[in-house]
Amino acid sequence: MTAKRQARFARLRERMAGAGLDALLLSVGADLPWLTGYEAMPLERLTMAVVPADGEATLVVPRLEAPRVVVDPDVFSLRAWSEHEDPVAIVASLVGKRSSLAVSDRTWATFLLALQTTLPSATWTPAGRITGPLRAVKDPDEIEALAAASAAADSVAVALLEGDIPLVGRSEREVSADISRRLLDAGHHRVNFAIVASGPNAASPHHEASERQIQAGEAVVCDFGGTLDGYCSDITRTVWTGPPDTFEVEVYKVVQQAQAEASRAARVGATCEQVDAAARSVIASAGFGDFFIHRTGHGIGVEEHEDPYIVAGNVERLVAGNAFSVEPGVYLPGRFGVRIEDIVVAEPSGARCLNVADHDMVIVGG
Amino acid sequence: MTAKRQARFARLRERMAGAGLDALLLSVGADLPWLTGYEAMPLERLTMAVVPADGEATLVVPRLEAPRVVVDPDVFSLRAWSEHEDPVAIVASLVGKRSSLAVSDRTWATFLLALQTTLPSATWTPAGRITGPLRAVKDPDEIEALAAASAAADSVAVALLEGDIPLVGRSEREVSADISRRLLDAGHHRVNFAIVASGPNAASPHHEASERQIQAGEAVVCDFGGTLDGYCSDITRTVWTGPPDTFEVEVYKVVQQAQAEASRAARVGATCEQVDAAARSVIASAGFGDFFIHRTGHGIGVEEHEDPYIVAGNVERLVAGNAFSVEPGVYLPGRFGVRIEDIVVAEPSGARCLNVADHDMVIVGG
Repeated sequence: MTAKRQARFARLRERMAGAGLDALLLSVGADLPWLTGYEAMPLERLTMAVVPADGEATLVVPRLEAPRVVVDPDVFSLRAWSEHEDPVAIVASLVGKRSSLAVSDRTWATFLLALQTTLPSATWTPAGRITGPLRAVKDPDEIEALAAASAAADSVAVALLEGDIPLVGRSEREVSADISRRLLDAGHHRVNFAIVASGPNAASPHHEASERQIQAGEAVVCDFGGTLDGYCSDITRTVWTGPPDTFEVEVYKVVQQAQAEASRAARVGATCEQVDAAARSVIASAGFGDFFIHRTGHGIGVEEHEDPYIVAGNVERLVAGNAFSVEPGVYLPGRFGVRIEDIVVAEPSGARCLNVADHDMVIVGG
Repeated sequence: MTAKRQARFARLRERMAGAGLDALLLSVGADLPWLTGYEAMPLERLTMAVVPADGEATLVVPRLEAPRVVVDPDVFSLRAWSEHEDPVAIVASLVGKRSSLAVSDRTWATFLLALQTTLPSATWTPAGRITGPLRAVKDPDEIEALAAASAAADSVAVALLEGDIPLVGRSEREVSADISRRLLDAGHHRVNFAIVASGPNAASPHHEASERQIQAGEAVVCDFGGTLDGYCSDITRTVWTGPPDTFEVEVYKVVQQAQAEASRAARVGATCEQVDAAARSVIASAGFGDFFIHRTGHGIGVEEHEDPYIVAGNVERLVAGNAFSVEPGVYLPGRFGVRIEDIVVAEPSGARCLNVADHDMVIVGG
């Protein structure tokens, strides 16, 4: 791993120089594991890597987390702090006189405020502006890691489509727990989310699984993902627990076509907003434009949501190695909703789809 | 719930007035659900409640999350934002001319930096200084919710102690996944962590479950917890996969006694550091002081770690309703480790223990 990590550090320092940054401070979130292989726990005890543009990187870590760190001496060194020490002061002393600083996007406000007090003359910017575009371009190993995570999620989606996951008569929460268990059984090390939205709840894109009992003859949107070997899966399928009516079939087919068109549009050189528009125009032409209330997709990698965002206004062009979701939906308040989502990788002739679970409308036994 | 929420808002505003704060801005983390019942998803799309000292509270939320919000019109109103809007500008306009602001501790740095740019004359402080002491005092409903979560975790701990969870020959990761599934089966809605640390790995307090295969005749520290109806569980038991030697028995008994002494010391009116000292002095007297490398405990509630922290230097006195972990440990690098943890509630005569799983040394079949 050392060579790969050194290459990442080199690309990072090149971008830091271009942006005039003196140091990067990385805490919780995906930048740190992407760069060092170590993930900070979301704790009130500060973990923060100090990456100067002009010197050695140091990982400041609580002493009781230190045994978990695999130090790569060519890449960074370790500074473990004990409970009687002040980690903010340690970070500040490593920063020294450097003043143009970037801090990882998810760093807790409480630590940023403490650092701002301790380093009053520093200027601050989100590190994502530097790391986001780097992380958005996956190398072949990362694509394979995403493919492995997608395959694991696919196996759960196939079970859903084949009716192996009972729905009717169970609560959304029970089905969500069932899906979570299956994600772990399929090799995920962590479940990130398992949305189960039935009947009218399916009209809420980020509905949380509730105590609602799933009925026969309704739509059930299942959107789930986890982390496997450090990389994320994310897939959505919408199934019916009984024969859909003509209108429901129409809505489903519109979403299915929108998902297919956007995947076709996701070729290297296309802008992100063109991919979004490809999905949106299908849905708008069918008269459901007002009911597709979110962007078409998000990048995926060490994090579930990262660059590139497939959204109107994003004129960035896709490059080889961009991996992201394509997940259009139609949400009819009080009635039902449909979403279909795959993870894809931009290639010259369109998207390579990492998910294989079928897209056709399915009625499951219940 | 309205009356309870209004009472919390009232206590909050009283403390805000005392601290001279004009508004509180609450994003991801536990303050928001504690106050409003709504938990912000950790997303690049900002969710933030603006709670002025002198006006109505408003929850600013991405439009696609809005259907999940149960609005309590006597407590707060909703401002859903669409993908073409700038949520930071919306928050800034709700803040208006107010300038002394507190932001919830876990708010992402990227949002705080954007707010600081948009509100250049504001001063900022972590909201935890206001909310932490309030949240640390649980009402009877919260204690019962913690007891229910503890009972669910207990059932998994009992399975471990009774040898129902196979250990020898499985990897730590397999056992961790098994424990995670059991936590869900026992009613948790979410697994927060499931540490399985075997043999020499047990000497690392926050060891992540690895591919290491568990051997016969060694210590296995299992520390796990989840969230049930919004409140957290957290329990640790250390078991042996074969007869321990005399020294291992000695270390175990020291930790067991330290845990018992600290629980006894955790009475209303004692300082947090006295409880820490009660555990530490047992361990130090036995000659293992250098190997108890963390504080004795942390508060628990909507969050796994919150006020009060049971640590040297914390002279806050326990009050009725304080709930926290008591979890001393001894960690012998390269050899093994022992930790025993319960969740307790401070009462006049000592701690009420919410966990019932046995503390005695257990050898499990393997």
